[in-house]
Amino acid sequence: MRIAVLGVGLIGGSIGLAARRRLGAEVSGFDADPATLAAARDHGAIERAAESVADACADAELVFCAAPVGALRALAAEALAASGSGCVVSDVGSTKRELVAALADDERFIGGHPLAGAETAGVENARAELFEGARWYLTPTERSGGMHYDRLQRAIADLGARPQAIDADSHDRLMATVSHLPHVIANVLVSQAVEELSRDSEQLPEVGPSLRDTTRVAGANPAVWTDIFATNGEAVATAAEAAAERLAEAARLIRGGDREGVSRWHSAAAGDRRALLERELAGGPLQELRVRVPNRPGIVAELALALGRAGVNIEDMGLYPAQDMQSGAVSLWIAGAEEAQRAAELVRELGHGVSVISAGE
Amino acid sequence: MRIAVLGVGLIGGSIGLAARRRLGAEVSGFDADPATLAAARDHGAIERAAESVADACADAELVFCAAPVGALRALAAEALAASGSGCVVSDVGSTKRELVAALADDERFIGGHPLAGAETAGVENARAELFEGARWYLTPTERSGGMHYDRLQRAIADLGARPQAIDADSHDRLMATVSHLPHVIANVLVSQAVEELSRDSEQLPEVGPSLRDTTRVAGANPAVWTDIFATNGEAVATAAEAAAERLAEAARLIRGGDREGVSRWHSAAAGDRRALLERELAGGPLQELRVRVPNRPGIVAELALALGRAGVNIEDMGLYPAQDMQSGAVSLWIAGAEEAQRAAELVRELGHGVSVISAGE
Repeated sequence: MRIAVLGVGLIGGSIGLAARRRLGAEVSGFDADPATLAAARDHGAIERAAESVADACADAELVFCAAPVGALRALAAEALAASGSGCVVSDVGSTKRELVAALADDERFIGGHPLAGAETAGVENARAELFEGARWYLTPTERSGGMHYDRLQRAIADLGARPQAIDADSHDRLMATVSHLPHVIANVLVSQAVEELSRDSEQLPEVGPSLRDTTRVAGANPAVWTDIFATNGEAVATAAEAAAERLAEAARLIRGGDREGVSRWHSAAAGDRRALLERELAGGPLQELRVRVPNRPGIVAELALALGRAGVNIEDMGLYPAQDMQSGAVSLWIAGAEEAQRAAELVRELGHGVSVISAGE
Repeated sequence: MRIAVLGVGLIGGSIGLAARRRLGAEVSGFDADPATLAAARDHGAIERAAESVADACADAELVFCAAPVGALRALAAEALAASGSGCVVSDVGSTKRELVAALADDERFIGGHPLAGAETAGVENARAELFEGARWYLTPTERSGGMHYDRLQRAIADLGARPQAIDADSHDRLMATVSHLPHVIANVLVSQAVEELSRDSEQLPEVGPSLRDTTRVAGANPAVWTDIFATNGEAVATAAEAAAERLAEAARLIRGGDREGVSRWHSAAAGDRRALLERELAGGPLQELRVRVPNRPGIVAELALALGRAGVNIEDMGLYPAQDMQSGAVSLWIAGAEEAQRAAELVRELGHGVSVISAGE
């Protein structure tokens, strides 16, 4: 199979590597940045560095557009213009509705979105295994060619991913909830905190662990996120409005002083989080270990090493330094009650105080 | 000095230990739970297990009420009734306005709130160093006795903490912003996600790292939080309403499609978070290291150990498993650009891909 990759950063480069190694494909690539293109070839992500989009697509059977979201529409249109009638053109953007709406007239375009690779960038981090087991959404429309869809989804399965068809609107709405809205909320919360705290400048309390967690993604990667908000604005705005309404409801509940009602609402949230996270875990209900530790270099290593040696996997971790920065707590999330108890014993053997908290307690 | 501690769990027990060791105080204690009281004595947190509140307070010069927030008002009133005119009575509750308003007629009562120990519970975790360097808010009123305040704040400084006077309203408003509101938001967000995702039950996307971070504290410790919401309802509701208004504004901005405006708003949030966190850090601007790793037991240890050996402290950490749960990313936050670069080199030497991201990028 002849594959063209347009944009050869982390995702495009990893597609190239996986396509070459796992599909035995001939991969040509193009990138607007010559240095990136050369690095992709040196890295083995592409076999041939094309001179243009048209050159890369000339005899391709499958084209992946892997540019930033804001550039995808023009790039995919150029790829469609340059490729033959049997070629299928896809992309890897985080939002789908706008792009699919713009290109749905062409049966050869089918949008895509692999849930992988958001954590790092650059072709130097590309690897053939990036998509192993990853969900890869595909957004065909009623106009999409059946043969085209079949070829695309087979190729994606062969790359190691799990293709799943979803309509573009549903995709963007779901992403708005699980990914885009948390970013909006982090932004809102951190700005509110700064404004509120600046009011009493002589009395700034230290920032609590909950504010640290809740605002961790505030302002992440402005270029990427401006594109996402621009192309998924309606779904993100709708989700944000729903959250605003829920917050206002929570405010009414809390102000009303209905202790039982507040308690029910709060406990329901614990159950909801457990339900959300446990879908991803094979090992059983998630348990939190709260470990009291001195805050010094090496302490996380000591904990993780002890658990690692015993074969206990850490699903999630949070560090909560105390105000003196000399001591603090580490939360470790472990899947399964037995495994969590075993982990707690290992931690106690190291001489640290530890509490096991089932989600919902 | 003769000190009484009423409620001898983690906080009360640690006050007892610190008072005995650091102040050389005679500490008597009482707890409604006889087993806890016995454990506190065994642990050395108190010298004498009293038979009642009145017995504990009989000749005390300083009384700390360290019961759950919901029980403080009755307990402190009982302590005031049982103790002499020269005695000062304080507490350690997370909210202050209601309690202080109820007891402000008595010049001997001065509310308090140490920012320490929220991470674990139980007298078995008590330790004399718990308050070392910790902020300890005190909420005197115009009726508070000057001599009483002076004795209390000296004792707290001697326990190793940093006493700071703040009026009870300001305290509760600040806590609403930096601690209580993030919990409300986590609750709201996790419930919204579950409801939204249940709508398309065949198409549940994996939960993204941002949703994991943002909802980490959802539903934590219902008993504690129901008390906090009950006693700080007005400030929490006001903060939640402000957040709802900000969210609605963000929705309007995002829906409006003003790309420049969205970009400015998003970048401002990055600056705000940096400003919030850097107040706490001596080492310089916070940098994020994104490390690509296999998701196996021991990997966090390997990273943390390498950094620990080189004396690099990890300020914060996030684990982001990929969908296949076989690989993923670890984010390490390091204070100071040079230190972050040094950490990145150490990580690269281990053979992992790593990107250094300055906050705001």
